[in-house]
Amino acid sequence: MVQLINGKKVANDLNLETKKRVIRLKKQDVTPGLAVVIVGDDPASQRYVRSKEKKAKELGIFSIKRALPESVTQSELVQIVKDLNHDDRINGILVQSPLPDHIDEEQIIATIDPKKDVDGFHPVNVGKLFLNLKGHYPVACTPKGIMTLLAKYKINLDGKNIVVVGRSSIVGKPMLALMLNADATVIDVHSHTDDISKYTKHADIVISAVGKYAILNDDDFKPGAVVIDVGQNMDENGKLAGDVAYKAKSDNIEFITPVPGGVGPMTIATLMQQTVDMCEWSKKIGK
Amino acid sequence: MVQLINGKKVANDLNLETKKRVIRLKKQDVTPGLAVVIVGDDPASQRYVRSKEKKAKELGIFSIKRALPESVTQSELVQIVKDLNHDDRINGILVQSPLPDHIDEEQIIATIDPKKDVDGFHPVNVGKLFLNLKGHYPVACTPKGIMTLLAKYKINLDGKNIVVVGRSSIVGKPMLALMLNADATVIDVHSHTDDISKYTKHADIVISAVGKYAILNDDDFKPGAVVIDVGQNMDENGKLAGDVAYKAKSDNIEFITPVPGGVGPMTIATLMQQTVDMCEWSKKIGK
Repeated sequence: MVQLINGKKVANDLNLETKKRVIRLKKQDVTPGLAVVIVGDDPASQRYVRSKEKKAKELGIFSIKRALPESVTQSELVQIVKDLNHDDRINGILVQSPLPDHIDEEQIIATIDPKKDVDGFHPVNVGKLFLNLKGHYPVACTPKGIMTLLAKYKINLDGKNIVVVGRSSIVGKPMLALMLNADATVIDVHSHTDDISKYTKHADIVISAVGKYAILNDDDFKPGAVVIDVGQNMDENGKLAGDVAYKAKSDNIEFITPVPGGVGPMTIATLMQQTVDMCEWSKKIGK
Repeated sequence: MVQLINGKKVANDLNLETKKRVIRLKKQDVTPGLAVVIVGDDPASQRYVRSKEKKAKELGIFSIKRALPESVTQSELVQIVKDLNHDDRINGILVQSPLPDHIDEEQIIATIDPKKDVDGFHPVNVGKLFLNLKGHYPVACTPKGIMTLLAKYKINLDGKNIVVVGRSSIVGKPMLALMLNADATVIDVHSHTDDISKYTKHADIVISAVGKYAILNDDDFKPGAVVIDVGQNMDENGKLAGDVAYKAKSDNIEFITPVPGGVGPMTIATLMQQTVDMCEWSKKIGK
């Protein structure tokens, strides 16, 4: 019988903790601040940004939104990020993806002050993570949230065979780095890999971040496997579904994150947690 | 029959090419410059530094050495690196490892101007590599040299099963990143992995960077395997040897880099190549 990893509950607990931290900070006259930059009117992006703003408000985090037309120029966008770098009310700056084709996204991300790079996408923060450097730096929120989930469920990573499916900058690669830092044996499979199931079938933990419905199913795992499903896809009935199709009575999967209610809520909760972390780091408060 | 990958020859060819590039640059009144910083009197470090200086001289690269006593302080060392950052004659700065225990090596590396980080160890350069960003940036010389070797021998990487043994910042991790960027399926095994041979036995290519003599042998590979041996160890007779013990008539290994004469010469040749690259990048010359 497959056991569901309740991301919604873990995210709620994390949000509650974040809310308490914000209250404590406010007693010291410090308010964490998040800036969200959005370009154009892609409905999914609009929805993500709205839910981030809503969650920030709910937790007492100050937030501002810079909504820009599709026609914004590179230099205008660079200037907006620079202004936010210098805005003392702001601890975290997030530039919502995707950006229009005429914008050089790498340059925009590189413009964000690494100390305010709440998404953990700046190359210097990615490098620190991959090198497992000591000290405080932000980490991409989805993989960081997955690590929190796995810790909550006391899933051991040390020496385990861990397969990451996908190699995006926002999930696959930082996930690989975090797992390596946690002493796991790491495997990254992707679109150029002949037979992904050849690898997943031997994995203790599979993290799938492909974005294709049913790219993996029950038979692709070994008994006792833990599956983290990062996919957000539509199934054949137009219902939200992950990368993994499975039966509730799977012989192989022991734990899985459902979609929705698994990884999704953890990403936004981790974003809020990290905004508060970065506020504390900047003021040298607390942990 | 095992075929040896002749790193010495490939390195010689690369050095010849570098020498020609230096001559061309000098005709434009530009001389690439390398600065080597060494602390203390570890004999191996002294030897490495001498061979780097010698090679630079041979290729027409300007080089300076900053030799500092074991007792140098953190702030003195930081200041020396900063001075080199501002020295217009210098395109590449290399701080020889290991540094004494009282020195914070991470901070020293982070002090190097990323544009002069000829070893490719600065977090921002590591991050760019891991993210596979476009543009010019230095890459750790040993893994970069290995990529050159594999290319010379026309060994296909796309979709291949590639096992990296070890996860150091200077070899294992950048190797993993380069292989992932080359569209390989990548596996990193290390000290916490139960049974390394379980992975190497299925690998098309194994890169071993452990530093333990005979940690792998013939039986640990599949037929047709390509083996890159980064180890520099002493065998039971006190002779220089790699991580891999093999018979010349191995049934499994098809290609291997010998020790000495495999990866070693490529590292230093790549360092020289990259010094010239960085000179050209800084002057916006050539490629």
